[in-house]
Amino acid sequence: MSIALIILAAGQGTRMNSDLPKVLHEIAGAPMLVHAMKAGATLDPERTVVVAGHGFENVKAAAEDYDPDATVVLQPEQNGTGHAVMVTRDALAEFEGDVIVLYGDTPFIQPETLTRMIDARADHAVVVLGFEADTSEKYGRLVMEGDALNAIVEYADASEDIRNISFCNSGVMLVNSKVLFDLLDATNNQNASGEYYLTDVVAAARNAGLTATAVSCDESETMGVNSRAHLAEAEAAFQERARAELMTDGVTLIDPASVFFSHDTVIGRDTVIEPNVFFGPDVTVESGVRIRAFSHLEGAHVSRGGIVGPYARLRPGTELAEDVKIGNFVETKNAIIDEGAKVNHLSYVGDAQVGEKANIGAGTITCNYDGVMKHKTTIGKNAFIGSNTMLVAPVSVGDEAMTASGSVITKSVDEGALALARAPQVNKPNMARKLFEMLRTKKAKKAEGKK
Amino acid sequence: MSIALIILAAGQGTRMNSDLPKVLHEIAGAPMLVHAMKAGATLDPERTVVVAGHGFENVKAAAEDYDPDATVVLQPEQNGTGHAVMVTRDALAEFEGDVIVLYGDTPFIQPETLTRMIDARADHAVVVLGFEADTSEKYGRLVMEGDALNAIVEYADASEDIRNISFCNSGVMLVNSKVLFDLLDATNNQNASGEYYLTDVVAAARNAGLTATAVSCDESETMGVNSRAHLAEAEAAFQERARAELMTDGVTLIDPASVFFSHDTVIGRDTVIEPNVFFGPDVTVESGVRIRAFSHLEGAHVSRGGIVGPYARLRPGTELAEDVKIGNFVETKNAIIDEGAKVNHLSYVGDAQVGEKANIGAGTITCNYDGVMKHKTTIGKNAFIGSNTMLVAPVSVGDEAMTASGSVITKSVDEGALALARAPQVNKPNMARKLFEMLRTKKAKKAEGKK
Amino acid sequence: MSIALIILAAGQGTRMNSDLPKVLHEIAGAPMLVHAMKAGATLDPERTVVVAGHGFENVKAAAEDYDPDATVVLQPEQNGTGHAVMVTRDALAEFEGDVIVLYGDTPFIQPETLTRMIDARADHAVVVLGFEADTSEKYGRLVMEGDALNAIVEYADASEDIRNISFCNSGVMLVNSKVLFDLLDATNNQNASGEYYLTDVVAAARNAGLTATAVSCDESETMGVNSRAHLAEAEAAFQERARAELMTDGVTLIDPASVFFSHDTVIGRDTVIEPNVFFGPDVTVESGVRIRAFSHLEGAHVSRGGIVGPYARLRPGTELAEDVKIGNFVETKNAIIDEGAKVNHLSYVGDAQVGEKANIGAGTITCNYDGVMKHKTTIGKNAFIGSNTMLVAPVSVGDEAMTASGSVITKSVDEGALALARAPQVNKPNMARKLFEMLRTKKAKKAEGKK
Repeated sequence: MSIALIILAAGQGTRMNSDLPKVLHEIAGAPMLVHAMKAGATLDPERTVVVAGHGFENVKAAAEDYDPDATVVLQPEQNGTGHAVMVTRDALAEFEGDVIVLYGDTPFIQPETLTRMIDARADHAVVVLGFEADTSEKYGRLVMEGDALNAIVEYADASEDIRNISFCNSGVMLVNSKVLFDLLDATNNQNASGEYYLTDVVAAARNAGLTATAVSCDESETMGVNSRAHLAEAEAAFQERARAELMTDGVTLIDPASVFFSHDTVIGRDTVIEPNVFFGPDVTVESGVRIRAFSHLEGAHVSRGGIVGPYARLRPGTELAEDVKIGNFVETKNAIIDEGAKVNHLSYVGDAQVGEKANIGAGTITCNYDGVMKHKTTIGKNAFIGSNTMLVAPVSVGDEAMTASGSVITKSVDEGALALARAPQVNKPNMARKLFEMLRTKKAKKAEGKK
Repeated sequence: MSIALIILAAGQGTRMNSDLPKVLHEIAGAPMLVHAMKAGATLDPERTVVVAGHGFENVKAAAEDYDPDATVVLQPEQNGTGHAVMVTRDALAEFEGDVIVLYGDTPFIQPETLTRMIDARADHAVVVLGFEADTSEKYGRLVMEGDALNAIVEYADASEDIRNISFCNSGVMLVNSKVLFDLLDATNNQNASGEYYLTDVVAAARNAGLTATAVSCDESETMGVNSRAHLAEAEAAFQERARAELMTDGVTLIDPASVFFSHDTVIGRDTVIEPNVFFGPDVTVESGVRIRAFSHLEGAHVSRGGIVGPYARLRPGTELAEDVKIGNFVETKNAIIDEGAKVNHLSYVGDAQVGEKANIGAGTITCNYDGVMKHKTTIGKNAFIGSNTMLVAPVSVGDEAMTASGSVITKSVDEGALALARAPQVNKPNMARKLFEMLRTKKAKKAEGKK
Repeated sequence: MSIALIILAAGQGTRMNSDLPKVLHEIAGAPMLVHAMKAGATLDPERTVVVAGHGFENVKAAAEDYDPDATVVLQPEQNGTGHAVMVTRDALAEFEGDVIVLYGDTPFIQPETLTRMIDARADHAVVVLGFEADTSEKYGRLVMEGDALNAIVEYADASEDIRNISFCNSGVMLVNSKVLFDLLDATNNQNASGEYYLTDVVAAARNAGLTATAVSCDESETMGVNSRAHLAEAEAAFQERARAELMTDGVTLIDPASVFFSHDTVIGRDTVIEPNVFFGPDVTVESGVRIRAFSHLEGAHVSRGGIVGPYARLRPGTELAEDVKIGNFVETKNAIIDEGAKVNHLSYVGDAQVGEKANIGAGTITCNYDGVMKHKTTIGKNAFIGSNTMLVAPVSVGDEAMTASGSVITKSVDEGALALARAPQVNKPNMARKLFEMLRTKKAKKAEGKK
């Protein structure tokens, strides 16, 4: 059966107290909307429709950035979840198959949960996702009879008996496309809030002689985000899961609570991560690497045997081959660094290729920007770049070549050659003492003048 | 009614195990004493009297640093809270009005709590601040009858019945100045510890035919600090409150637990703060800013649209205009940086003015100190400072001017001009190979020699 | 009575999911094995025998690295704890005295616990270490009668009554050497897992008419590590203890949870440690020091009055005399820095001696490596090293000497002298504007060409 995905992402999220639409707030480096789209994408949907409202253009851009084939439709005013689904009718007019409704502010639904919902569809027209919660919570209740879902009762409308039911409604629903829209037509907004509720589809289905069921997932999957405090809790929940999984996979985290992963971080076995490390999006670390304290990685690949940090910042486009060492206060960007090369201290290596076993001295800077354009630096294997060398790109330094400390290299250096750009040293006897004396006198006079 | 503030701050705090007087230990970047003074200051007191003993001079200096009008009186020996208040008698001789007694090691009393005490004074001569606590705690108990406080009973002296009272004494008290000293004269030190207790004022008041009452606050407000572990707990309590308030106000904290605020930090809505950020005193951040991981800010202002860090250190006197970018391993101090300017990597910008949209290359240093005095650097708008430029202050670089990478700039550069200070590059063919060869031979010989 | 130590360290630790033998995973900067050896070493043992199996060579190396006199014996296959002890028989053939059996994956047994075991040996042939645990745990139970240990019953074999005993077996055992091996000969591997159990020694002892007893310790001491998650918990337990002890000793930790200590860190009273500080092995900090946020120290000594960080990295061989200041983005290694000297920003000071009150400017680098060997830099007292000075070692700068900003110093500088190595500055009027114009045109053409 073909699947279409509907993701409701129109709300403003007043309690977020933000100009940014709620679903664009990020968890683990990706908007909540993208987390929901990723979960749905595991079903290999034929169509993905995102319902946007507040911040329509930004939500559209984010949805299309993740999935260029997504259709983003406008819900001009927020008249309830039923209404939100109704606005997808045209976008799904040609579609035949099942529709699953997810929420852009509910980022943690697991793919296997969705698969279980699809399995349950074999016997029922409508499948709702539920979860067990404490009966003190004010969620809508799922009233089951065997595997049949008889009703969804909002907490406000529930009797004492119904409130004692601990099986609650997540809002996620799976139903045949044609049936869905027909059933929605049978619902109305004659209720306290004057809104169309997607949940009313269950009653409509029963009225139409169809059956519904509910599948259960862990409450943590259905965690919704309504405030910045929720956002922080959701981030913490994501991180806790990621840390536990990585430890099981053979990664050492000395202080798990101080290491932050992105939604897509990959770390190999027997890699050790020291405290206080931040992984931005798109980082892959192979096995047997050590990521030292206070490091920050984004868009980088670290190969086996690498040592990174402390205080290393790897920016997008960084590719470290095996046994590369990146030390403290070093920034790399768009940098291919070959096997065994070392950049140990206080350097900026950007738009660069560094050869095998090259040694980049402290304070080296690839001057890649001329104020208008960016240019490339190439350094050969076994090259020795003296401390504080400025490599004014475009420039190349050959294999086994050397630059003298403090040189500004503007012309390329042949392999095996030594490049120097250095003023001769002059020592002026006693001049420092005289200078200090002079400066102190000057300072004293200034102080005098102020009186 | 005029208010006078008495802050008891004479104790040594033996369990702190410190040479520093207890009340000078800091929470959120300010001494505990200052927290107490700040809370009291919201009442706009006519007089503030701090009672100091251990570390008198240091406590006096801290009190006067926060409030130059504060009177600091010496309690030469610690004979109890009643005695401590007695030593303020001369300082308050001329004062007519109410006196509120606070404690220098109880930093979290809220202003609204004090206001409620003042309201309660309308009907009673003495107002005591109480809090609900677990009955297993050994605090003094407040024995109430309706809104009348009948007695304060120390835990040691309390019967089983009294110990079951959960309403406890914080020690904070509000009473008319003249009445206070008269009542204190009626107390004595005929008790187990041989000290004068401020709490005895309540019994003295009743004996004098006056009434007392108690106002209740949350236990967390009355948290006292007696050890470094308490200090860490108090710091954590402060931070937790600050983080929650900021999230409510629309600030995103990706990992709230790793962000540290000062007592006076101000952050605007829709600002995002990544993990591991430290705010020292006197920082203001406007809306829509991103403070990236591992940043450290003190005495700085960041305007709307700014991006700071990772690994940025903003020191006092840093003023960033809108859309300024301060990148990794960059330190700023006394630096006014105009709209849209960028200091992206590995730089020190101190005692400087940087113009709009100027670009400061990696490794740039304002050489502001000549060994005796500090001097200023001025950089014009749209200027391009090449990587590793040394700007030997006092010096200025004009609008749209440029410095060549690796130059030491000692003379000012006119607008639109290019400044170079660079030795010519010489490439010596094969010289690197020869040098390496020579060094390796030398090393081998050395190793040989050691055998 | 002489003591011999047996440390069982042969297991692979499958659940660690690692190529590294389990006992070599580290806690607080030392392998778990070393923690166990350290605890045992407090008994001043005559012999130490480590039983290794998986990763034999690596375990041997680690054991001998900590204690060169340790004997490491191979347990070729893992046939139970009894078998592991049996393989030490030859190594202890000459030894007469008591043997204590510890575990390489149980790092937290306290010295005083071992002492209590030795005291208990006076009256019993065998002393077992037990702990109180929740009866839901599946540990072996210790069946006591008065102070006599009647039996150790594995959970699987235990009746309901026995399972209700909360006194559990840690596995640690103390027994006379000769008796131990005789008793082990009396055990067999006729059980479900086909292994020899050390615990069977207790039954064997009773059969032989000897008595056993058990000593109790806190459950936290017996914490075993079987997975990376356990490892993280053990690390957290270590750190929590270390932080609490230091606070009691008069050290301020603003955020205890973000400060990481090594097994051997020493910190003096009234030192303040800001959030996010990492102490690697072999660090000593005296009293009254401030270690600022984001600092990383290994193998370093910081004397009274020092200020380190933020973002300071002190590497092994760093010795800071009193009142030294190491500022942000500074790395030191093998560096003796004398009283009152300052290295405030963005510098690398390695293989160096810096004199009293010397001032090292921002961006200074000691160029200690020529590509083959390391060399030393010496800086005199009151010397002023200008910003971005390259000190090409071996080189020395005398007392009260000065180097001009941006100089590459290859020849030594006499005391009081000024060294310059600087190209003259040339200003080219309007050249920056022309250059920008040219670059912009070039860029536009390039963009044109791409169409």
